[in-house]
Amino acid sequence: MSLQDQLKQQAAWKAVDYVKSDMVVGLGTGSTAAFAVDRIGQLMKEGKLKNIIGVPTSIRTYEQALALGIPLATLDEQPHIDVAIDGADEVDPNLDVVKGRGGALLREKMVEMASDIFVCIVDDSKMVSGLGGSKLAMPVEIVQFCHKYTLSRLSKLKEVAGCEAKLRMAGDKPYVTDNSNYIVDLYFETPISDPAAASKAILDLEGVVDHGLFLNMVDVCIIAGQTGVEVKERPGKQ
Amino acid sequence: MSLQDQLKQQAAWKAVDYVKSDMVVGLGTGSTAAFAVDRIGQLMKEGKLKNIIGVPTSIRTYEQALALGIPLATLDEQPHIDVAIDGADEVDPNLDVVKGRGGALLREKMVEMASDIFVCIVDDSKMVSGLGGSKLAMPVEIVQFCHKYTLSRLSKLKEVAGCEAKLRMAGDKPYVTDNSNYIVDLYFETPISDPAAASKAILDLEGVVDHGLFLNMVDVCIIAGQTGVEVKERPGKQ
Repeated sequence: MSLQDQLKQQAAWKAVDYVKSDMVVGLGTGSTAAFAVDRIGQLMKEGKLKNIIGVPTSIRTYEQALALGIPLATLDEQPHIDVAIDGADEVDPNLDVVKGRGGALLREKMVEMASDIFVCIVDDSKMVSGLGGSKLAMPVEIVQFCHKYTLSRLSKLKEVAGCEAKLRMAGDKPYVTDNSNYIVDLYFETPISDPAAASKAILDLEGVVDHGLFLNMVDVCIIAGQTGVEVKERPGKQ
Repeated sequence: MSLQDQLKQQAAWKAVDYVKSDMVVGLGTGSTAAFAVDRIGQLMKEGKLKNIIGVPTSIRTYEQALALGIPLATLDEQPHIDVAIDGADEVDPNLDVVKGRGGALLREKMVEMASDIFVCIVDDSKMVSGLGGSKLAMPVEIVQFCHKYTLSRLSKLKEVAGCEAKLRMAGDKPYVTDNSNYIVDLYFETPISDPAAASKAILDLEGVVDHGLFLNMVDVCIIAGQTGVEVKERPGKQ
């Protein structure tokens, strides 16, 4: 296992300490979250966790959890979740995060908003001084209708001034989400100065469904680095 | 022609006075808006309006305008609209309106938000003392994923307390919008006390795409009644 995978696994295992028997657990998507799902399956097999119901955030996670024998439900059936565990693409010093580069941002946000505790797990390469600072994509999910118009309006918002907006492609066609929508990726030269204002301005545009800024949502962030695993809690929570 | 149709036509023709040659015009959907589209086509044939580009808000309007020979574009091609003309399901004393019972609310809102002037045309049966007051539907467009969960959250919002939330059906299946989404119709016993707060609370829910409250959007409302046609302008506009 690579060093980075070892770090991801350390963070994931630590997160599973928050899961107790009889809980409904939101199951995240991505390489780090996959270690947590594996660990939950293992502890259930060993009888150390009982009566767990998992709520997956993607088809991929659904299939992984199914193979591990974790009983599964949707938000329609289990609208209240005790703990959700998921990775992130960027984490800032306030524990606000960017997620959804994998394209599942809306399902992830719905599940994690429904959770009493959202535990975010990352290796230390994901830490940024400000969101957008990694220069990788901040995704925005938009309806297909007049997407060029919506993309143009996004790129002109003063709250994300200086960003470059690109329609996400899959080969020579636009990438389509599980909800039949498109993704516009915003690329920043410098971190977003006011993520809350950016969030509101983006959501206010008709045609926008949701975006990858997850603000005031992470309760606990577990960060694995070469010097060990750090657990950061949002002030005033837990 | 029925009396109500005569009233609708009177309002529609009056609205077309706002259309001048060389304008980009948003073309609404519904029985009242159809009279305006017909009138624009007629004035173009007579040479009284020249160089008009229409931006339709639905497939139905697209087909009507095409048959009339009105040159057409989308918001992708014409992101700036001079005048939009459309009907409404309810109009309150502030000229805030409910729209979208026909299911095209998102396209209508995008086109009408892009317009310098939005002229709303109704017969006087659409006037209410407060939005929701007609006891007919106020539509909310939501993604299909976990729609029962989103419907439940909508019905529990304190900003729309007392409403009944129903998934719109088409036969025995959920009605699907042009954007592949579902519609939840909210039914009120008494008018919505604070439409701006309700709008924000509804939009804040993940899974909600948009809703039928069109607030601070109508610039001019033309109301046809048996005693004549009344033109109301939003204070501070025009």
